Amino acid sequence: MPSYHAPLKEMQFVLHDLLNLGNHYATLGYDDATPELVDAVLEEAAKFTESVIAPLNRVGDEQGCRFENGEVTTPQGFKEAYQQYVEAGWPTLAQPTEYGGQGLPYSLNLVCAEMQSAANHAFAMYPGLTHGAQATLMAHGDESLQARFMPKLVSGEWTGTMCLTEAHSGSDLGLLRTKAVPQADGSFRLSGSKIFISSGDHDLAENIVHIVIARIEGAPAGTKGISLFLVPKIQVEEDGALGAPNGVSCGSIEHKMGIHGNATCVINFDDATGYLLGEPNRGLSAMFTFMNAARVGVATEGVAAAEAAFQGALEYARERLQMRSLSGAKCPEKAADPIIVHPDVRRMLLTQKAIAEGGRAMVYEMATWVDITKSASADPAAKQRASDRLSLLTPIAKAFLTEMGFEATSLGVQVFGGHGYVAEWGMEQLMRDTKISCLYEGTTGIQALDLLARKVLGSRGALLESYCTELAQWWMTQSLPDALLPLRQSLLAHLQQWGELTQSIALRAQKNPDEIGAASVDYLMFAGYVVLAHQWLRMALVADSFKSHDPDLWQAKQVTAQFVFTRLLPKAASHALLAGQSCDSLMQLDSSQFRS
Amino acid sequence: MPSYHAPLKEMQFVLHDLLNLGNHYATLGYDDATPELVDAVLEEAAKFTESVIAPLNRVGDEQGCRFENGEVTTPQGFKEAYQQYVEAGWPTLAQPTEYGGQGLPYSLNLVCAEMQSAANHAFAMYPGLTHGAQATLMAHGDESLQARFMPKLVSGEWTGTMCLTEAHSGSDLGLLRTKAVPQADGSFRLSGSKIFISSGDHDLAENIVHIVIARIEGAPAGTKGISLFLVPKIQVEEDGALGAPNGVSCGSIEHKMGIHGNATCVINFDDATGYLLGEPNRGLSAMFTFMNAARVGVATEGVAAAEAAFQGALEYARERLQMRSLSGAKCPEKAADPIIVHPDVRRMLLTQKAIAEGGRAMVYEMATWVDITKSASADPAAKQRASDRLSLLTPIAKAFLTEMGFEATSLGVQVFGGHGYVAEWGMEQLMRDTKISCLYEGTTGIQALDLLARKVLGSRGALLESYCTELAQWWMTQSLPDALLPLRQSLLAHLQQWGELTQSIALRAQKNPDEIGAASVDYLMFAGYVVLAHQWLRMALVADSFKSHDPDLWQAKQVTAQFVFTRLLPKAASHALLAGQSCDSLMQLDSSQFRS
Repeated sequence: MPSYHAPLKEMQFVLHDLLNLGNHYATLGYDDATPELVDAVLEEAAKFTESVIAPLNRVGDEQGCRFENGEVTTPQGFKEAYQQYVEAGWPTLAQPTEYGGQGLPYSLNLVCAEMQSAANHAFAMYPGLTHGAQATLMAHGDESLQARFMPKLVSGEWTGTMCLTEAHSGSDLGLLRTKAVPQADGSFRLSGSKIFISSGDHDLAENIVHIVIARIEGAPAGTKGISLFLVPKIQVEEDGALGAPNGVSCGSIEHKMGIHGNATCVINFDDATGYLLGEPNRGLSAMFTFMNAARVGVATEGVAAAEAAFQGALEYARERLQMRSLSGAKCPEKAADPIIVHPDVRRMLLTQKAIAEGGRAMVYEMATWVDITKSASADPAAKQRASDRLSLLTPIAKAFLTEMGFEATSLGVQVFGGHGYVAEWGMEQLMRDTKISCLYEGTTGIQALDLLARKVLGSRGALLESYCTELAQWWMTQSLPDALLPLRQSLLAHLQQWGELTQSIALRAQKNPDEIGAASVDYLMFAGYVVLAHQWLRMALVADSFKSHDPDLWQAKQVTAQFVFTRLLPKAASHALLAGQSCDSLMQLDSSQFRS
Repeated sequence: MPSYHAPLKEMQFVLHDLLNLGNHYATLGYDDATPELVDAVLEEAAKFTESVIAPLNRVGDEQGCRFENGEVTTPQGFKEAYQQYVEAGWPTLAQPTEYGGQGLPYSLNLVCAEMQSAANHAFAMYPGLTHGAQATLMAHGDESLQARFMPKLVSGEWTGTMCLTEAHSGSDLGLLRTKAVPQADGSFRLSGSKIFISSGDHDLAENIVHIVIARIEGAPAGTKGISLFLVPKIQVEEDGALGAPNGVSCGSIEHKMGIHGNATCVINFDDATGYLLGEPNRGLSAMFTFMNAARVGVATEGVAAAEAAFQGALEYARERLQMRSLSGAKCPEKAADPIIVHPDVRRMLLTQKAIAEGGRAMVYEMATWVDITKSASADPAAKQRASDRLSLLTPIAKAFLTEMGFEATSLGVQVFGGHGYVAEWGMEQLMRDTKISCLYEGTTGIQALDLLARKVLGSRGALLESYCTELAQWWMTQSLPDALLPLRQSLLAHLQQWGELTQSIALRAQKNPDEIGAASVDYLMFAGYVVLAHQWLRMALVADSFKSHDPDLWQAKQVTAQFVFTRLLPKAASHALLAGQSCDSLMQLDSSQFRS
């Protein structure tokens, strides 16, 4: 079983050296969030994660959640650990001070969330979902609702969920049937059944606040009739005290591939009292406001999985003795060489490292954009730019990093050979747990449509052009060491190819809209490799100044950047080829002909 | 839970139309194996698999094997099903008639094995391992040993295992420590501990015959001191009757990612009586004689997994209603269109179909080569050719088809969205079960080294050149419909590229042997895509004559071949790029620098 160690040095390199976080926070008026405070928070978060959360990862998987007599019980130790988590104040970190939060930036919390997810994906989802509920309440609830529900959500005494999916309504939310009936007092009564509700029921907290989408009686069909509600498991008085049970119950929990420590629930609403968030029938656009942040969070799960798999595989590859290096024995005094001498093992380890560290740079930068969009003091132009960048990069990060995170865990299993398949080594659990990140919050296919149809073509290329132009211009002004010049040239060529590819798809799509869906996933994967390469080139450039005072880090960043450009980025070539194909061979078969 | 249906029509297309099996069997003197008999066997095998083996797939996963008081108990129903399997005579199908077998060809049994593996991977491994033990005994045991052990192995009353791995000795068999001490009567006493022994202990059969590699006392270190032994769980008298228990015990079973219904055992040998197979110290080369067939079997597991995932995903995609086609509603009378209208869902389904059907053509053709190598009547030149082709294609099929089979199951989960992650739908089990095929019988990395270092460069390119030349010449003599001409052109270009890529690696490897390991996996994947494309072009060509009498099959093969050449084969381009890179970025970091 690999023991997780928070990669503080790597995190600090991205936060301080790459993103200059101190400056970023000062600009946004986070006066408390000095680099010293950031480091102190990270060190404490690392300690807590490594000592309290990580040890429960295996037991969570083995025991899973139990559902008996309508109640969900989490695995042994989860309740106590969550209690410690609340007592230590971790839920409050990036929450509004008016409701008891510490008012620190979203991005700082994301770093802590990465640690938690890497150490124990299932556990990390309880606070993760709570943040989604909180963000929705803060964005769309009125002040009295906020005052009633926020304090205990902020403290972590209550947790939250997002109730979107129904059995017949997944990616297509317009099909939902849960109905809401208005009451004389302004509240609503909700009836319906939701499925796949992560953290939907459990024994960690005394109340659970569900954010629910439903259709108000008489509302239009489809997505134009969706409204957003807050529905507590237990009713809450005006003063915030717990009242009577609400008409909310857990119908069952799913038996699933992984994240066994997190209950995935059927939640039934039977005339449950709920409160409208935002305008009637505007629920879907209200959901979108929190989706970017939620999806950046899921992208971070991909990074976390890659990091955990890399740590496990690296330790094993350094210790496991098996065969000799083809270029001559490296440890002749031992029975065999450690397998890290073998080029193909190194290829797997460097792939994991490239995803974990490059993906980390991606999501941390995106988190600084979230900071800006949430900031009251940032200027409107900066907010618009941050929002535009997030809009474009979020589906890329969500889908690309979860797919690559999954690949990194699969490579982790391969590095271990047969031992990777055995539960006690922990590698196969990482694979099973992280596969969910490719599915929830919109599958890879849904992200790809969001990117290509909505964000890129929907803005007539404006979001993309602005991003690529800014990147290209920025790179042209940088002074690079000689070794990085060919990498910059390659990056610039890929940025140009991205634009050309987009134009060719747009042209084809004018004749046949199915060209969009046919190209979408390969288009997204192409984009992901390019953005990853950009982050690695930036890291190599920043690390260039480390040559004398930290030659190991300098060397690691230079070599891994070369690896990324020579052994990962070429995969973008195939994706461009595929995204450039016509959709003919996809669309010609009748449904019945796929197998006669 | 998808119910498995043996794709008889597809199997028959490959066997009869593509491979002309009747002719092949007649040439080898299998006079009984007429096309009519083949069809009758397949139909019975399909019935048995669908009604007896498939229904135990889920329960096998849920219950797993139990280990109590030194005994392994298989999941509920496995014992009864295995009994039926034996009573129906399935184990005897391709076994020698002198020991009670039906003497039918290996290739026919492989088709049945594909069905079993697709229906229930864990169950199929029990007979699968028995075949490995039988083949080794027939190839290397003396007649008296064969007479003593074969009849009950053939009948299936006893099962077999292959005991290679030890805790410190996996890919590197030279490190093994199990020792064998010669006895006065010519037998040996074996002591040592083996791990990862599939079907190692269970309650299905009254005896288990272990094929064990061990080092005879005083033998040289490393691979030159490995000998092969037969070690029964219960001693067997000269007349074949069961005797006293042998010094063989199960120490524990592994908790693992999948194939829960098959016990993966630690098997301890304590002064256990064993019998030498073949020459002392020649055990490793003896192992190689059965490895090709065993690895073709594992490649078939990849095909089986792709087939099962395709069946499940196709059924779901035809029924699940979610969103409208971007090119206009296809089922306006329904609440939404079935998801098979979406191009990206079709991309996933066609990828699965291409792997299942193209992979099937690959492994069935290889099985005909195994038939030839096993035949007493085939002429030596034909045997040499078959052996050469197997030598080259086996690592490609084993690694490429298991990796692609795994990808097909992962796509199956994606087609189901969140439901794919839930156990009751069966898709996630397919993923977990088939991941083992990328690991056992040599990981993907080991297969890649076997291909590039041993088979291709080890023959100074001769095996490859002979294969590619034959393929290219054959294709040039074929008369193709116009639509397939560009595909042939593409295939021929790829065959040429394969040779050029090989030469460039060989040149670099002369300076630095690490170039081989660095290029190996991408080299193998490139080769896999090319061979898959070749099979699809052949299928499209053969199916061209179906246009009038079976237009659906004609259409399906033409369109899928176009899909393969435009949407799968382009991935070979990236692998060629990667295999063409120098190994520098892989080898420059010191082990300590991967993470400082």
